[in-house]
Amino acid sequence: MKLTTEIEFDIRFSETDAMGVVWHGNYLKYFEDGREAFGKKFGMQYLDIYANGYFTPIVKSSINHKSPIYYGQRAKIITTMIPSKAAKIIFGYEIINLTTNKISAVGSTMQVFLIKESNEMDLNIPGFYLEWEAKLGIEK
Amino acid sequence: MKLTTEIEFDIRFSETDAMGVVWHGNYLKYFEDGREAFGKKFGMQYLDIYANGYFTPIVKSSINHKSPIYYGQRAKIITTMIPSKAAKIIFGYEIINLTTNKISAVGSTMQVFLIKESNEMDLNIPGFYLEWEAKLGIEK
Amino acid sequence: MKLTTEIEFDIRFSETDAMGVVWHGNYLKYFEDGREAFGKKFGMQYLDIYANGYFTPIVKSSINHKSPIYYGQRAKIITTMIPSKAAKIIFGYEIINLTTNKISAVGSTMQVFLIKESNEMDLNIPGFYLEWEAKLGIEK
Amino acid sequence: MKLTTEIEFDIRFSETDAMGVVWHGNYLKYFEDGREAFGKKFGMQYLDIYANGYFTPIVKSSINHKSPIYYGQRAKIITTMIPSKAAKIIFGYEIINLTTNKISAVGSTMQVFLIKESNEMDLNIPGFYLEWEAKLGIEK
Repeated sequence: MKLTTEIEFDIRFSETDAMGVVWHGNYLKYFEDGREAFGKKFGMQYLDIYANGYFTPIVKSSINHKSPIYYGQRAKIITTMIPSKAAKIIFGYEIINLTTNKISAVGSTMQVFLIKESNEMDLNIPGFYLEWEAKLGIEK
Repeated sequence: MKLTTEIEFDIRFSETDAMGVVWHGNYLKYFEDGREAFGKKFGMQYLDIYANGYFTPIVKSSINHKSPIYYGQRAKIITTMIPSKAAKIIFGYEIINLTTNKISAVGSTMQVFLIKESNEMDLNIPGFYLEWEAKLGIEK
Repeated sequence: MKLTTEIEFDIRFSETDAMGVVWHGNYLKYFEDGREAFGKKFGMQYLDIYANGYFTPIVKSSINHKSPIYYGQRAKIITTMIPSKAAKIIFGYEIINLTTNKISAVGSTMQVFLIKESNEMDLNIPGFYLEWEAKLGIEK
Repeated sequence: MKLTTEIEFDIRFSETDAMGVVWHGNYLKYFEDGREAFGKKFGMQYLDIYANGYFTPIVKSSINHKSPIYYGQRAKIITTMIPSKAAKIIFGYEIINLTTNKISAVGSTMQVFLIKESNEMDLNIPGFYLEWEAKLGIEK
């Protein structure tokens, strides 16, 4: 089973640049919006992770731009969890320009589990996260 | 004596919007750059304030836009402290478009002293700040 | 009749700062979101204005901060048009922290009508805008 | 010969997030600062490209985070051109936390040549760019 979530959004004027399109770096904000929506849908939000004694900082990100999004256009972000046997949280993203029906960008992010108390990386998947994966039937 | 500092800067592409000019909200980033430069010059940086047990959050800000700044243009921000008898830090700002020699914007911000420990506002000017004002000969 | 619109939103992690709260400058993004929602509801969006040959850049903005918004909290922005006899578009904003039920900030923006072709300010309210005001019964 | 440039910078408060460190997406702004500095040093700025009838949008970017940068710390960005036989502009970046002397992040971006008039990608390296490469002795 693939865990995925979709949200639609309008382009903010402040997100555009002098080429008239969304500034490339703002796609990482859309990815973040996608992760938030994912966490809300599947019950694993940033503050849940925090309550369990962890931060999950981004350690890798990549974006592949296919077509621009202009101000006034509407878009959709599809966020999909990529199951990982390692102590990592990996998401894939697809941003669709709903006005042109073209893929605007694909990308991915990788997060690690940082122990709040020691500020050190946990090389094992924390218990609360394994339980959540089991509950959702995530296969790895 | 008027305490003032000037810094020059280039416009970042990411700061422009689809009208081809600096997005209006980014002027608050320039004001922040101005405050930082001011603090560096006169020995009262954010981390000095923090080390003395205070935060100084912005409670008011205003911007008055006079002429745009286009990508590729160079600008200058003049930051001036407005002495205050109350427990407030007030700055005035002037942003000059160095390419056109026009004033791009004027503005101001007001900060208060928030006690880190209690998260409450200090209605009196903290001692360390009074000493700093005295040392610099700030008249009120 | 007072023209007003409300939208609710979650705080983005990228909008917070090292004090753990929404960085003050990001309130101008919320104001923009408010204007967009207003334009959508009442049929006067940025691209409608553009199609009529105008830009409406922000020439003044002010923010008055009352209480912070922390990451994980939900908020609401109330955007109200302030009718103006001059060739200006004025909005008032109120941002409510829905988690604490406190007002987080109030503010306002003023926009002018810039003629696209000449890049000059129109000192008279453009015809298409007067018609829209009349249709909505805006009294001044 | 490797074409490279270095700039130092302070962290802006507005660039930090609620974890107290630079928000990961802001590294793409630092990369942009690096490219700007590179273009300035070697005589190939965004506006030069534009004057020759081209845009060079980012089509790929990736960031690999190694260690955080806290507010108050100073950093350096090293921008290096990666010569390409294809019609692409590729840069590698290294961000050093000067306070800790640790690498904070490495990354890369790829740009293409978009013909302004037709809005289509040029699959050949434009003449003005080849001349610039030759002048600098870039070997591929």
